[in-house]
This record gives sequence, structure tokens and C-alpha cells, in this order.
Amino acid sequence: MDCIFCKIAAGELPCEKVYEDAHTLVFMDIAGDVDGHMLAIPKRHFENIFDCDGETLDRLMRTVKLIAEHCTKACGYDGVNLLNANGASAGQSVPHFHIHIIPRTAGDNINAWPSFGGATSNIDNIYQKLKL
Amino acid sequence: MDCIFCKIAAGELPCEKVYEDAHTLVFMDIAGDVDGHMLAIPKRHFENIFDCDGETLDRLMRTVKLIAEHCTKACGYDGVNLLNANGASAGQSVPHFHIHIIPRTAGDNINAWPSFGGATSNIDNIYQKLKL
Repeated sequence: MDCIFCKIAAGELPCEKVYEDAHTLVFMDIAGDVDGHMLAIPKRHFENIFDCDGETLDRLMRTVKLIAEHCTKACGYDGVNLLNANGASAGQSVPHFHIHIIPRTAGDNINAWPSFGGATSNIDNIYQKLKL
Repeated sequence: MDCIFCKIAAGELPCEKVYEDAHTLVFMDIAGDVDGHMLAIPKRHFENIFDCDGETLDRLMRTVKLIAEHCTKACGYDGVNLLNANGASAGQSVPHFHIHIIPRTAGDNINAWPSFGGATSNIDNIYQKLKL
């Protein structure tokens, strides 16, 4: 499969590897958009949360938790943002499930929250559509 | 404990409940910042991913996956953004672990990605600090 993250997971493309175990990998995002930006992925190819099986999701999030704790316990950070996009309409650019990890410290001047423009529809109408 | 999300989970404060099971709850965010904004929480109080135990994290993410799939399979969406802040420095406002779920469709004009200002430090230097 011609997937850049599969190639990184297989060692066919280089990465700055932060952490690796049998099922997951964490490496530096090279976009240079924000300091400390890491990506956590399952080694096996899943496009996003929709097709990722539950067990793999558990493993990925346990790795994300481990890295988050590592950031605060060992690396001098005191906060962590997680971001994830599923589907092209959500802005997912690489179609291999990945979770963005951004370590934070007070006064780091990082904005990790989108500029939402405000709701355009009545919340109750959307709620009626969404509730299970 | 004087926690607004604990009170919502206990039924002491109202919410627009999207989904509930024994351990997790999903309800509409009432901030009105973006259409379809939901919050997924563990019913038990954990401040964030740092103190949340692994089993609860698994359960929360299984619920998030269920809701994400519900959005695309039953509600007419084709994407989902997930956002999560851990710690005051990360912008966490309510100190009860919560994951923001934002359903998406192509052309919805929602911006769900922060405006990062660009990295200010050398990625390799940060990498040396972060790697396990």
C-alpha cells in the first residue's frame, strides 16, 4: 500500500521515533507548525477511527496516555493537547489513523484550539438528529 | 465534589444526552461555538488523561468511536474531529476529563484545526528531550 505512515512504521522511510511498541509508533511531525508536535499511529493500516478495531484503538490510546505522562513527568511540560481528524471533510490529510500530540507549558503562546465561527443551527435541532 | 460534569453525570444538572452507558456519557456542548459539538466523559471523576486509568480510557474511547460511527452511519455526516485538552496550560477549562466530538460534512465551513503560529525551536532539539 502506498501509505507514507505505513512506510514509516515499516522502517522504509525515516522518522524521529519518540516511542515504539509492537502495535504502535510515536514520531515527530515534521510539518514544523508547532513545537513538540508528535503523531501517534497504529502500525497496522487503518484509515481512521471508523475502520480501526476497538482493540487497536485501546492500544493506541494507551500509548498516547503513556506519552502524555512522559511529557509531564520527564520532559518539563504540564499539559497536553490531542487532536484527531477522521475523514477528508474533517481535514484528515494522511489517510492512516493518527493522533496529534502537542505538549504544553504555561505561557508557551501556543494556540491549540480552533477558531470556531459560532453555531449556525439550533442546538436542539441537531441534538434530535444526533441522539441515539 | 463541586464538578459540573460530575453533576451532569449524576443527573443533578440537566443535559442534552446523546448517549449513556454504565461508565460513559455523551452530551451536547452548550457553548454554541460550533454545530454538533458534543462532549464525551467518563462518569467517574478524572481530571484528565494523566490521572484517568487505562480501563476507563479504553471505555471512553470505545464510546467516542461508537458516536463517531453513529454520526457517519446514521446522521448524514462523513467526518469527525476529536479535540482534547489536558491541563490548564493546554486550555482545559473544566477539570473533568472530556473529549470534544465535532461531526463534519464536506463544505460545512467549520475550521477544526488550530492556527498554529509555526515552530519556534529546532525540532531535533525538542526530539532529544521527548524521545523515550
